[in-house]
Amino acid sequence: MAIAPTSHRIDPQSGVLSAATGRYEKRLADLDGIYADNAAFAESVAREGDRVVYYVHEVRPVAARGDLIFGTTFMEPGRIGDEFFVTRGHIHAIGNRPETYYGEAGEGLMLLESPEGETQILEIAPRVMVYVPPLWIHRSVNTGAAPLVMSFCYPSDSGQDYGLIARSGGMATRIVADGAGWKAVPNAAYRPRSKAEIDAILATQD
Amino acid sequence: MAIAPTSHRIDPQSGVLSAATGRYEKRLADLDGIYADNAAFAESVAREGDRVVYYVHEVRPVAARGDLIFGTTFMEPGRIGDEFFVTRGHIHAIGNRPETYYGEAGEGLMLLESPEGETQILEIAPRVMVYVPPLWIHRSVNTGAAPLVMSFCYPSDSGQDYGLIARSGGMATRIVADGAGWKAVPNAAYRPRSKAEIDAILATQD
Repeated sequence: MAIAPTSHRIDPQSGVLSAATGRYEKRLADLDGIYADNAAFAESVAREGDRVVYYVHEVRPVAARGDLIFGTTFMEPGRIGDEFFVTRGHIHAIGNRPETYYGEAGEGLMLLESPEGETQILEIAPRVMVYVPPLWIHRSVNTGAAPLVMSFCYPSDSGQDYGLIARSGGMATRIVADGAGWKAVPNAAYRPRSKAEIDAILATQD
Repeated sequence: MAIAPTSHRIDPQSGVLSAATGRYEKRLADLDGIYADNAAFAESVAREGDRVVYYVHEVRPVAARGDLIFGTTFMEPGRIGDEFFVTRGHIHAIGNRPETYYGEAGEGLMLLESPEGETQILEIAPRVMVYVPPLWIHRSVNTGAAPLVMSFCYPSDSGQDYGLIARSGGMATRIVADGAGWKAVPNAAYRPRSKAEIDAILATQD
């Protein structure tokens, strides 16, 4: 009956988590519709659509309820046009489930959005812990020239909803290059959520 | 209504977590009854009972249910007789709540015990993530010559039960010096838990 304690080593360069129970990866071509510059995206996909742009190692417990999932995210650096590489982003399917992200290597941002459309941006770097509170949509952005590696932890019954971002035409804010740094710009394709959709998110709390 | 996202920097040397919402510390004199060598403990307390031997920085969310608590533990190195410095140790008051510990600096052990009295020992060092599964009593041990600093994350409704360890006369295993290293030895004062007490722990699950 007892679940055995386990120990896992994180390689900050590769993002590999030893003794992970799962791994998934995203290739450039998987991120269709995410970036503003469709022509630049099509050109990148034609050139290197099969390239893995980020991957996740995770440990999932045997039993879901009350437990935790933890792991690592490795993100390649890069841009589509002037827009920095991002993860697909999600909100937890049970809305009132939070997540922590901890910088292991590289530098980037956590881009957060409330159901009502408020944007918050927090910088991640080694030794920086970002707390994503319940009910915030979140996406990681690699603004650096090197891979961004983070470890994460969240309640095992959280679930991920990826459709919410797609239905609003993306997140309200995009992160683009600005000289050697970055800046936040409005996403022209963004459609604010209706009161009914916001209420539906809030209703996922338990 | 929304909880604001936050960002926190961990100093691996001091264990300080910036923008923590809480901090607590243990002084040597607070750990009466923990160590095997009563005479050595009394002598240490007489000499430096007020000394802070470990402290915790934490961030606790506004709302408990479904949320996470995270933070850092800083443990001074040292021994009482031949026994390495330990934290008081606990099991979660809701038994089926896990915890992750991540090595930031120094080296040590996570000493784990199941309700039935099985011992597991996992080494912690920088970049090592230890998963403490639901229903395991756990205590940190600093086996190094430098401070042991770890970050941790656990469900915010877990709670801590410190009485269970005291009622069994401590944990079943002690960690003592063995040359330049460590070894595990039986705790002579340990009294295995009764079936009724084990059942009571299992009944705390939700």
